[in-house]
Amino acid sequence: MAKEITSRSENYSDWYIDIVKRANLADNSAVRGCMVIKPYGFAIWENIRDQLDKMFKETGHVNAYFPLFIPKSFLSKEAQHVAGFAKECAVVTHHRLMNDPDGGGIIVDPDSKLEEELIVRPTSETIIWDTYRTWINSYRDLPLLINQWANVVRWEMRTRLFLRTTEFLWQEGHTAHATKEEAVEETLKILDIYATFAEEYMAMPVIRGIKTANERFAGAEETYCIEALMQDGKALQAGTSHFLGQNFAKAFDVKFLNENNQQEYVWATSWGVSTRLMGGLIMTHSDDDGLVVPPKLAPTQVVIVPIPKPSPVIDEVVHKIMAALKAKGIRVKYDMDMKNRPGFKFAEHEMHGIPVRLAIGERDLANGQVEVARRDTKEKTQQPLEGIEQYIEDLLVEIQANLFNRAKAMRDQYITKVDNFNDFEEVINRDIPGFISAHWDGTTETEEKIKELTKATIRCIPLDAEAEDGSCVLTGKPSQRRVLFAKAY
Amino acid sequence: MAKEITSRSENYSDWYIDIVKRANLADNSAVRGCMVIKPYGFAIWENIRDQLDKMFKETGHVNAYFPLFIPKSFLSKEAQHVAGFAKECAVVTHHRLMNDPDGGGIIVDPDSKLEEELIVRPTSETIIWDTYRTWINSYRDLPLLINQWANVVRWEMRTRLFLRTTEFLWQEGHTAHATKEEAVEETLKILDIYATFAEEYMAMPVIRGIKTANERFAGAEETYCIEALMQDGKALQAGTSHFLGQNFAKAFDVKFLNENNQQEYVWATSWGVSTRLMGGLIMTHSDDDGLVVPPKLAPTQVVIVPIPKPSPVIDEVVHKIMAALKAKGIRVKYDMDMKNRPGFKFAEHEMHGIPVRLAIGERDLANGQVEVARRDTKEKTQQPLEGIEQYIEDLLVEIQANLFNRAKAMRDQYITKVDNFNDFEEVINRDIPGFISAHWDGTTETEEKIKELTKATIRCIPLDAEAEDGSCVLTGKPSQRRVLFAKAY
Ligand SMILES: [Zn+2]
Ligand SMILES: [Zn+2]
Repeated sequence: MAKEITSRSENYSDWYIDIVKRANLADNSAVRGCMVIKPYGFAIWENIRDQLDKMFKETGHVNAYFPLFIPKSFLSKEAQHVAGFAKECAVVTHHRLMNDPDGGGIIVDPDSKLEEELIVRPTSETIIWDTYRTWINSYRDLPLLINQWANVVRWEMRTRLFLRTTEFLWQEGHTAHATKEEAVEETLKILDIYATFAEEYMAMPVIRGIKTANERFAGAEETYCIEALMQDGKALQAGTSHFLGQNFAKAFDVKFLNENNQQEYVWATSWGVSTRLMGGLIMTHSDDDGLVVPPKLAPTQVVIVPIPKPSPVIDEVVHKIMAALKAKGIRVKYDMDMKNRPGFKFAEHEMHGIPVRLAIGERDLANGQVEVARRDTKEKTQQPLEGIEQYIEDLLVEIQANLFNRAKAMRDQYITKVDNFNDFEEVINRDIPGFISAHWDGTTETEEKIKELTKATIRCIPLDAEAEDGSCVLTGKPSQRRVLFAKAY
Repeated sequence: MAKEITSRSENYSDWYIDIVKRANLADNSAVRGCMVIKPYGFAIWENIRDQLDKMFKETGHVNAYFPLFIPKSFLSKEAQHVAGFAKECAVVTHHRLMNDPDGGGIIVDPDSKLEEELIVRPTSETIIWDTYRTWINSYRDLPLLINQWANVVRWEMRTRLFLRTTEFLWQEGHTAHATKEEAVEETLKILDIYATFAEEYMAMPVIRGIKTANERFAGAEETYCIEALMQDGKALQAGTSHFLGQNFAKAFDVKFLNENNQQEYVWATSWGVSTRLMGGLIMTHSDDDGLVVPPKLAPTQVVIVPIPKPSPVIDEVVHKIMAALKAKGIRVKYDMDMKNRPGFKFAEHEMHGIPVRLAIGERDLANGQVEVARRDTKEKTQQPLEGIEQYIEDLLVEIQANLFNRAKAMRDQYITKVDNFNDFEEVINRDIPGFISAHWDGTTETEEKIKELTKATIRCIPLDAEAEDGSCVLTGKPSQRRVLFAKAY
């Protein structure tokens, strides 16, 4: 029953890492900053991936696969991109190992030095647009709506499991269009998929917005994002969708013949979400007893624990319940482990965040009842065995909705309107700072000054921000709408 | 209608590359030896992957994800493994790029040299067993049945799309067991999954066998394999399953407490198939008109072409047929393209290997008929519109079976028993050499001598090889069973 995890109030960061480890989501590896995603964590990631993949395919996208390596010179081709990505990355310089002639074990063969170094992709715009040049000739080849699921590497100095790791898994969409309008529409369509996924599947409320120039993707004309608020009042950027204009088309000379027989540069978008979503999932719902997984993404939605252990009478009923639940498409497991007692099992399944637990003993059965415990509220009730499958199906829907509503109420509670810098500093230094909605004069200078003074960054200009005359919270200069500030992961 | 592909008889290698490119399966990239898998090729790979993944999960395996990078020193820990894998590989030596202070663009920051070089995984036994050490303590933690879908890199000098590329996609299973018997059983269970998948889904007949010591995986006690025969009479190793004994457990000090409370080293297996299967698929079934995809793996199983182009009358019937086919789970597309003529479309869909094509014109409809063309035999028949969905469902089953039977007849025809070296040389130098079934004295020396003289290698000792006294085809020394030789991809 030992729940050896730190409580949130004690230390939120330690609590987070404890959850990741005790719920068997991920582990550190022997390679600095690279994580091992453990089977249970990966099963949740597979559910995230499969649902997103379905949504991409339903909107006409197809998957492909591009090389892991990018020639160093490619990074330099787009002026903004190079500034953003030619930094901390893994550089391949040689292609052979050999036995040290002096007996020092295995060494890098100096004769195998590459003519041009290869970079392990931090993102794939360059190698993909180099490929698109050969695929796109005419407007008939457009649009190109391609996604890839891949690993990428960014050499992070300070890492945290799922939230910031040197290697991570993600999807990156790269689309090519004949017109600006179509590309912008695609950018927004994807933002909508991301927001819908976050809210309906992860039960994580998000704000849709536009990044400031300063926070824009390196090489983009406009970066759209979804931003979520974690329980500790820090923001998490959960997905980004970039309108790239013709920047990459120009850098890689990708033109097409339009319907009027004229050469034009192609318009582009790119967009991605990553294993970082796992971090968002954990920090939106989990509690001091462990992980909480929304039913739609839970590898196991219902676990059945026999009280005190399996018996022929219990097993028979359990198998009927399981068949009825499976027929409804519900993912259910029977915990037949003979070694541990129910209390231990309860704690373990709570730690893993299984949405619903049934406890079934012979005495309950004699009364035609079972005990149903929900993970979100930890409420336990006795329910009639008769019709239990319908009760559970409804309960899973209710838990999914409750998790979203609870997270949204918390998020909404922590959006604070602030109109002067004293208040700004007071709010941002609270235990749970949340989002600050404030006026900003629109300059990068002010944005950076505020960050320097408070560690808060502009998370986004919300898409639904209403026009409102005001004055910048720092400089007092005029502003037409509020933006959202927060400390962020 | 231009079918600008080389014929098989003209040049089999060129034909292969033409198919890969013209059927939109894959492309070369700007990075030497790394391929781009195009959307159509990737859709086939997704079908391969999803089916295998299902079979792994049905047999109790789970997915996880381990780091891309392996510390150089890890490769040296297992004596055989290092000899096999510390060779041609991508070596990461630095972690930062910077602007050349002398204005020479982006250069590698010399200050970012890693203390220990990282190798881009050529296979993951070492990093995984380093992790397993922390996961395994007692017999209760066993078995561990883990698989990962990943990219790997082996710095190949001569590459060919899908068959041998520097980067490729694969799955690698890595299991840990308490007993030798259980590990051997796992090795064979996976071999069985691979063989079943190859024959029932890819329609590619395979021979199950054991590799000779010389061809064994570096670090394995025994390597099992499935071997297929391509149309040009060369063999393709399509999957391998390794019994690793306690080699990696010893190298990475992975012990467990057994039921008698004693420390023991863990027993291991590893197994994998890769995007190389795409090459096998192509070279088993395709012809001079293009790709042939078995129905079970075809992204589109049925394409409907309106004759000569879409019309309200045709569209209405097509939509009824499509609904009926989709209700049966059949993947169907309507080619509504207005720009190209039917003949062009027919050739394109043949190039892409779509198993069944329906051609529907208003005149046919008036007669209550449609034209059905099957890709495997290129046979065309008129079929009644009434009940067409059942006809097509049966036809897809028939095509799947026909492809397998045709490939198996070809394969069986090209297994030649040979009892002296003159005959061996004659057979191996035929246009279509195929497998040679011959006696071998069991020594690596003879195996290598035969390879030197003929380019043929021992593909495997078939699992069903019967005991038979004979004498080695090269040395005349005694032998107890025949083995299979072939030239191989
Ligand atoms: Zn559990
Ligand atoms: Zn086609």
